[in-house]
Amino acid sequence: MKNFETLAEQFGTYFNKRHFPTEPATLYDPNEYFLQMGGKRIRPVLCLMGNELFDEISEDAWYLGTAIELFHNFTLIHDDIMDEAPLRRGKETVHQKFGSNTAILAGDVMLVTAYEELNKISEHYLRSILSIFNKTAKEVCEGQQMDMDFEKLESVSYDEYIKMIELKTSVALAASLQTGAILGGAGQRNQELLYDFGRKLGIAFQIQDDYLDAFGVPEKFGKQVGGDIMANKKTFLLIHTLEAASAAQKKELHHLMTHNTTDKVAKMQQLFIDCNANEWVLKLKNKYLDEAIAHLEDIAVLSKRKAPLLELAHYLIKRDH
Amino acid sequence: MKNFETLAEQFGTYFNKRHFPTEPATLYDPNEYFLQMGGKRIRPVLCLMGNELFDEISEDAWYLGTAIELFHNFTLIHDDIMDEAPLRRGKETVHQKFGSNTAILAGDVMLVTAYEELNKISEHYLRSILSIFNKTAKEVCEGQQMDMDFEKLESVSYDEYIKMIELKTSVALAASLQTGAILGGAGQRNQELLYDFGRKLGIAFQIQDDYLDAFGVPEKFGKQVGGDIMANKKTFLLIHTLEAASAAQKKELHHLMTHNTTDKVAKMQQLFIDCNANEWVLKLKNKYLDEAIAHLEDIAVLSKRKAPLLELAHYLIKRDH
Repeated sequence: MKNFETLAEQFGTYFNKRHFPTEPATLYDPNEYFLQMGGKRIRPVLCLMGNELFDEISEDAWYLGTAIELFHNFTLIHDDIMDEAPLRRGKETVHQKFGSNTAILAGDVMLVTAYEELNKISEHYLRSILSIFNKTAKEVCEGQQMDMDFEKLESVSYDEYIKMIELKTSVALAASLQTGAILGGAGQRNQELLYDFGRKLGIAFQIQDDYLDAFGVPEKFGKQVGGDIMANKKTFLLIHTLEAASAAQKKELHHLMTHNTTDKVAKMQQLFIDCNANEWVLKLKNKYLDEAIAHLEDIAVLSKRKAPLLELAHYLIKRDH
Repeated sequence: MKNFETLAEQFGTYFNKRHFPTEPATLYDPNEYFLQMGGKRIRPVLCLMGNELFDEISEDAWYLGTAIELFHNFTLIHDDIMDEAPLRRGKETVHQKFGSNTAILAGDVMLVTAYEELNKISEHYLRSILSIFNKTAKEVCEGQQMDMDFEKLESVSYDEYIKMIELKTSVALAASLQTGAILGGAGQRNQELLYDFGRKLGIAFQIQDDYLDAFGVPEKFGKQVGGDIMANKKTFLLIHTLEAASAAQKKELHHLMTHNTTDKVAKMQQLFIDCNANEWVLKLKNKYLDEAIAHLEDIAVLSKRKAPLLELAHYLIKRDH
């Protein structure tokens, strides 16, 4: 049983090769450039771990992991266009460096290349893997569309936000684990439990991300603290605050969200605290983490096989209180 | 043996249904809107014809035809963004009506849905069909990128232009026929001949399109005559004229291409004629049509089975002397 770090290193070595033809360079070099930027490769490693939970890692899991990582990068390239993001990991995004048209097409061909990798998987698993891959790919698109729709809304309900997070982030983590488990020969029930572990872990991770964006220590967080606040992003904190606020607090919220004053971040942080959103959010995170771990515990394999996934859950989500 | 029109009507009926979930409507309704615009459905019908050349049309051919048509519409939605086209078939394009971000995402999910259709194909054919589909999808992206690259170049060689046309247009027609033939149980040699028939027919069709854009009868052509000339598009006519022109003619060409005067179309037409490009282009079209038909004749099935494809070739490409 290998832990996340060992598998991440192994996958990094395996994945670090040219994935595209050389010509036309105007199409394929942007994709090679983007893949060279690196990344944590969380999804393919989850796939390998899902496989190893039930059996030795098979050759198919490397093809599948590659497909999953290419798919993830396809979504990043297209999302960066939609978000008009100039930078990712400190480097120019594809559309910024090569133009939006090339970025659209480069993303498209990245997605097709993911399907080329999937087509290397053994006959016995091909259809069921394709089925989950396609379903998940559609859900990720739905989540991105919901996220864009939310930007235009005055307010978003807690249920709608959870749904969006699940689709945009969690299902891809969950499906990586599940498809890996299929390659390990897992039965339906164990697959479902592992899927739910990944899904709830993903939600807990997003809740933590929302919290850290407002209350994180800048040096540790790696992003500018208060970015979501400045952008009026409907996060777990804002959604709870909007629901819990008094009439006077709602008025202040509205004023802050319509005027980008220099003290906006500090005042919003105070409002979050006054409405107890920070405490509520941490409790919510713990709830999802606990549920994720309960699903993992229910999986019918020896506990020691689950140790790397449990370790990963605690590494990704820091328990508060 | 059914002819193109009969199969086009049958496929039209089969395809005329909802292809996407209802929610989120902001993502899926744009795709339904776009599919409702209609189209000639040439590619799926080629797939059905490729199947029927060798055997009765199987259920798989309808799934495959649906996947091929969804793929084609995905390329149209994304191409329209890149070309900044406001209209298609007289109606607003997806990005024009719903915004570029939604158009990117709607196209993405259209492509994934094409793969969902492919995953309905029988086990026995799934991998080989996926393999050709993926290869062709990449080539179509390459062709679109080359087309965009050409816009920025002063001149393009005949060989480069043929290559671009093949990738952007012909391979999709060729692959539709070939994958249909696979479902009909065709052997490798017959598959290749049918592929080459489609590939050369596609090139002949593009040559004809280039010719009609400059010399077509407006009422028959359906598009504005001279559009390519006004946009300085590197067509077969322009490429030949640039190669054949005298120094004085080159100077005039350059002047016309850098000044959008009101007599630009008329003067360019005259230059094409003076350089004999119109005659050369018609000969080239006939050459590709003849080669296409020769490939069809070489296929080892009874001549009467080939009749609908031969008829289609002559319907699509009008022979000029």
